[in-house]
Amino acid sequence: MTAGTRYICVDWGTSNLRIWLMEADGTVIAERRAAEGMQTLSREDYEPALQRHLTSLCEGGHAPVANPKIMVCGMAGARQGWLEAPYADLPAELENLSEKAIRVPNRLGADIRIMSGIARRDAARPDVMRGEETQLLGLAAASGKAAFTGTVVMPGTHSKWVEIADGRVTDFSTSMTGELFALLSANSILRHSIGGAKPGSDPMSDGFRRGLDRAIDRDIGLSRGLFALRADALLFDIAGDETADALSGFLIGREIMDTLGSRRPDKVTLVADEAIGGLYAAAFERLSIRAEPAQAGTLTQTGLLAAAKTIWPG
Amino acid sequence: MTAGTRYICVDWGTSNLRIWLMEADGTVIAERRAAEGMQTLSREDYEPALQRHLTSLCEGGHAPVANPKIMVCGMAGARQGWLEAPYADLPAELENLSEKAIRVPNRLGADIRIMSGIARRDAARPDVMRGEETQLLGLAAASGKAAFTGTVVMPGTHSKWVEIADGRVTDFSTSMTGELFALLSANSILRHSIGGAKPGSDPMSDGFRRGLDRAIDRDIGLSRGLFALRADALLFDIAGDETADALSGFLIGREIMDTLGSRRPDKVTLVADEAIGGLYAAAFERLSIRAEPAQAGTLTQTGLLAAAKTIWPG
Repeated sequence: MTAGTRYICVDWGTSNLRIWLMEADGTVIAERRAAEGMQTLSREDYEPALQRHLTSLCEGGHAPVANPKIMVCGMAGARQGWLEAPYADLPAELENLSEKAIRVPNRLGADIRIMSGIARRDAARPDVMRGEETQLLGLAAASGKAAFTGTVVMPGTHSKWVEIADGRVTDFSTSMTGELFALLSANSILRHSIGGAKPGSDPMSDGFRRGLDRAIDRDIGLSRGLFALRADALLFDIAGDETADALSGFLIGREIMDTLGSRRPDKVTLVADEAIGGLYAAAFERLSIRAEPAQAGTLTQTGLLAAAKTIWPG
Repeated sequence: MTAGTRYICVDWGTSNLRIWLMEADGTVIAERRAAEGMQTLSREDYEPALQRHLTSLCEGGHAPVANPKIMVCGMAGARQGWLEAPYADLPAELENLSEKAIRVPNRLGADIRIMSGIARRDAARPDVMRGEETQLLGLAAASGKAAFTGTVVMPGTHSKWVEIADGRVTDFSTSMTGELFALLSANSILRHSIGGAKPGSDPMSDGFRRGLDRAIDRDIGLSRGLFALRADALLFDIAGDETADALSGFLIGREIMDTLGSRRPDKVTLVADEAIGGLYAAAFERLSIRAEPAQAGTLTQTGLLAAAKTIWPG
């Protein structure tokens, strides 16, 4: 057991839980993962699940942490999660986000906080994020610049585009790109043309380029472009994997076109794994926008630790 | 038994079959409906099914038709249907469409033809229709103007927008509006906000107007606007039926905006039932476009009869 302060950081999402025992300098002492998330847990399940993982985390020679300081982010803070954490409003200072974190009453003798999300409370185009704010905090911390400035693109089930100025989130927007891909390829008429094929990660593939062309050069609306993919298959006998690639390219291109509108940043910071990051980078390149990759893997962890150190300076 | 020529007209779709015994003057002598379509029939099932319905159609005092003349339209002509009927290319003369109808070999002693669809064979934005061409022919015949001219909007699972000049289909475009509504309300994250509610048909409802606002006035892209509906529900506690209305208004608005582009016709002909027609008419009114309703109910029947009379003048 070391003398320094230790933190427990928890990324508790829709389907999965990841938990780390960390030193203040970022050293990960132990880690656990489990397929337990909001979709399968009821409110009463969270505390016993956490206790089980805490015990497991301290096995193997790690002394139990007394009065543990536990920082949680993700869907555990959703209305259907453990305890609803508030949303911070725009503009939201990343460094101060943890001040709004909600304290969770518990019988573990622990100080447990769930990070707040961020809301865009505008009736014209409301939006919410929960989880990504912690990655953004991690990005700012990892860049060594608390006053991070730029456009951050975070592709995924619900892709986020975030404007950050001097460490404050000033605006953001969500596109349902990943969810639309999953729904359309499995459940729409396009399933007959895709036949279970999965998209590849090659931005030079015929399908991906065709999809991107339709979205960027031709500017076909989303709903018409989807049916064009069906017509492609019927008229030109396109293979399933090529149609899957084309759907992927088309949805990514539409996300970018719809979000950019008439505004074109010189560069964006791209928070994505390598495969999907390569596809988005190719799409940005077509628009002469530089996409700087960020290491997505550890951002949540970095962000949770930064938030924990703000609340419990050690 | 009358002396005049009789025709058998068949609308054979994805899920349903409708069959009419008709006089050349349009009188319907007998009619049958059945829940038998491409989704449940294999290729070999079509002929026996048709024979059964022909027999049933001639019960009740109607003498059997000798060497029946049978005009079929719809998905019976799709690749997965009875026999693949060709697509006519653009520009497609409505009056001559039946010339491309495919003749179906059969053991019923019948002359059976399946109407061709229409294809837009353009790699930039390919498109297909199968079934709607017969409604368009019916529209031209019913208007008493074979040389029909105008923009025709046909809302549905796959909404068609069709440009017709002097009885020739010069262009068309398909949006997956109805299919997207069904998928998104039942299978996407929006299902949590809709909770099984169905959209109403009141174009003045708060939800419908809000959805339309977002699509028309704010011009939010489709994928971002969908997530905004989710955020509405989370931030402003919107009820399920209002969210369903808003999704309906938003998808209809996006269909119209994406299809119109920069072009704004003074008026369109709207082929729709009353409920959905009222919603589209309200959307068009917002854009100062006059929507003239067409009687959708019998257009297929009128079109089939017109095609039959072209092939078999009697």
